[in-house]
Amino acid sequence: MPTRSRNVSSVALRLPQRAEVWLFDCGEGTQHQFLKSDFKSSQVRRIFVTHMHGDHIFGLPGFLASCGMAGTGQQQIDIYGPPELGKYLDACRRYSKTHSSYPLQVHVTEPGKVYEDDTYIVSCERLKHRIPAHGYRVVEKDQIGHFDVKKAANLGIPPGPLYGQLKRGEVVTLADGRKVNGADLCGPTIMGRKFVYCTDTVFCENAIALADQADVLIHEATFAHQDAELAYQRMHSTSTMAAQVALAAQVKQQLILTHFSPRYAPGNALELKDLLSEAQAIFPNTIMAKDFLTYDIERSGEAKQVKVSA
Amino acid sequence: MPTRSRNVSSVALRLPQRAEVWLFDCGEGTQHQFLKSDFKSSQVRRIFVTHMHGDHIFGLPGFLASCGMAGTGQQQIDIYGPPELGKYLDACRRYSKTHSSYPLQVHVTEPGKVYEDDTYIVSCERLKHRIPAHGYRVVEKDQIGHFDVKKAANLGIPPGPLYGQLKRGEVVTLADGRKVNGADLCGPTIMGRKFVYCTDTVFCENAIALADQADVLIHEATFAHQDAELAYQRMHSTSTMAAQVALAAQVKQQLILTHFSPRYAPGNALELKDLLSEAQAIFPNTIMAKDFLTYDIERSGEAKQVKVSA
Repeated sequence: MPTRSRNVSSVALRLPQRAEVWLFDCGEGTQHQFLKSDFKSSQVRRIFVTHMHGDHIFGLPGFLASCGMAGTGQQQIDIYGPPELGKYLDACRRYSKTHSSYPLQVHVTEPGKVYEDDTYIVSCERLKHRIPAHGYRVVEKDQIGHFDVKKAANLGIPPGPLYGQLKRGEVVTLADGRKVNGADLCGPTIMGRKFVYCTDTVFCENAIALADQADVLIHEATFAHQDAELAYQRMHSTSTMAAQVALAAQVKQQLILTHFSPRYAPGNALELKDLLSEAQAIFPNTIMAKDFLTYDIERSGEAKQVKVSA
Repeated sequence: MPTRSRNVSSVALRLPQRAEVWLFDCGEGTQHQFLKSDFKSSQVRRIFVTHMHGDHIFGLPGFLASCGMAGTGQQQIDIYGPPELGKYLDACRRYSKTHSSYPLQVHVTEPGKVYEDDTYIVSCERLKHRIPAHGYRVVEKDQIGHFDVKKAANLGIPPGPLYGQLKRGEVVTLADGRKVNGADLCGPTIMGRKFVYCTDTVFCENAIALADQADVLIHEATFAHQDAELAYQRMHSTSTMAAQVALAAQVKQQLILTHFSPRYAPGNALELKDLLSEAQAIFPNTIMAKDFLTYDIERSGEAKQVKVSA
């Protein structure tokens, strides 16, 4: 449930290269959070839903209804989630007489590849929760390194259609009979970034597999380490479970904890800062999500922004 | 849809004598507004829903789920609304696997009496909207005036069981054969207060009948007077329609306008203050709702609080 300082779950992945935002979960009040942020709901192109609990989906009907009303030319929205998600959205639309002014497509997720285009692959894995839940992994594909125009000119290769082939790393035969390997003219491969979102789940091997070598892992940490029994009962994670996942998966940049129980609010015997310390003892590069926190997943000067709501 | 400064519809009627809150509509984010207010969701005992549009109901599933989780001993909640309301709530609970920890009862409203107890009668009337919509009227029953103990003593009536009968206005025969009319020992009748909530609707006679002699009328005013054509198309009210209803119904204390189109945000050709002026020209005792506005419906020193979210 929301508190005065933290809303329920929704994370926005900003892809500035294509002016798109992808949402992960959409708890109640997500559209209100958008209004208070610099994100535009009209840029939301895909929504990935982890599971059907209310704190992850009760904001969807309102978010989708408002997208159609803003008159900002909302593009198609593709929604990915459990089999009941489509039925839930249909029921909400039917009973509330909401008519979508833009195309809306709901896809049922199965473990494995969920979505792919030229640049990204999104996959999911089954997590361990009271009801079926999926974690999501977004992988930016590796790109061939930057083409060295100067080097090509020094080899006496004239600008033109050949450049396109060389840029793609192909072997090309020049007019004078010389063979040139495009790969020799390209810089080192530009490694794609990896972003993983795991909630809700108790510690599980699938989370480690999903988070393998991720640049950034957002993982739930509902409970403190000493409340591990509660965590197993309710199938949620402790802060130390989240850190163990990050450590085992060799997360490269950052573990971001989120989805905290209100029982650790300031003034209680255990507070959120204790959950953070526990996690950092295992995985030092850990921070805590808070509403409107923005994190840049960096790579050679470029940045992809991740916005996290706790 | 919500804006940065105004949330969607929900009005809370506080009954301090019984530590209860009755809600009228429950748009998305109502539970978040509760957290920011001095209202306790655990005191919500009844929820009256006007119609099935999302901006009036999308906050219900989350509100009801959180009521059960707060561990504050939530009492029973009775919900009143259109026939589809129960099905909508069932679908949301079924798909989100929400289990209520307190009794929840859904009642289908028909024009006429909706609820009655010793102190209050709630009734509703069909309004004129794109889908079936009801306005609600809460009437506090008139009470017999305060019993004058001094006057009774002066008449030589001994304190005891007779006082109870006299307080109820009954005629009593004393031991010495005198007949005393209790009504003569009671002060003037304490008039009950009347609160009426009309949304969503275009101008209609039923709204006038429902608001008859109300102390406070909350009426929607989606559009400015010059946009009356839009109001008729979309079956919403202009500010002047709302004022005309208040005038014709002889509203006694206050008309409160709410449910404004975002098109009148500051900086536009017409602003909300223009809607207010238009209404005040017809019904001077008009104010505009804003989030967290509290209005006391006064009566001889006592107060019943009304909280209004636009």
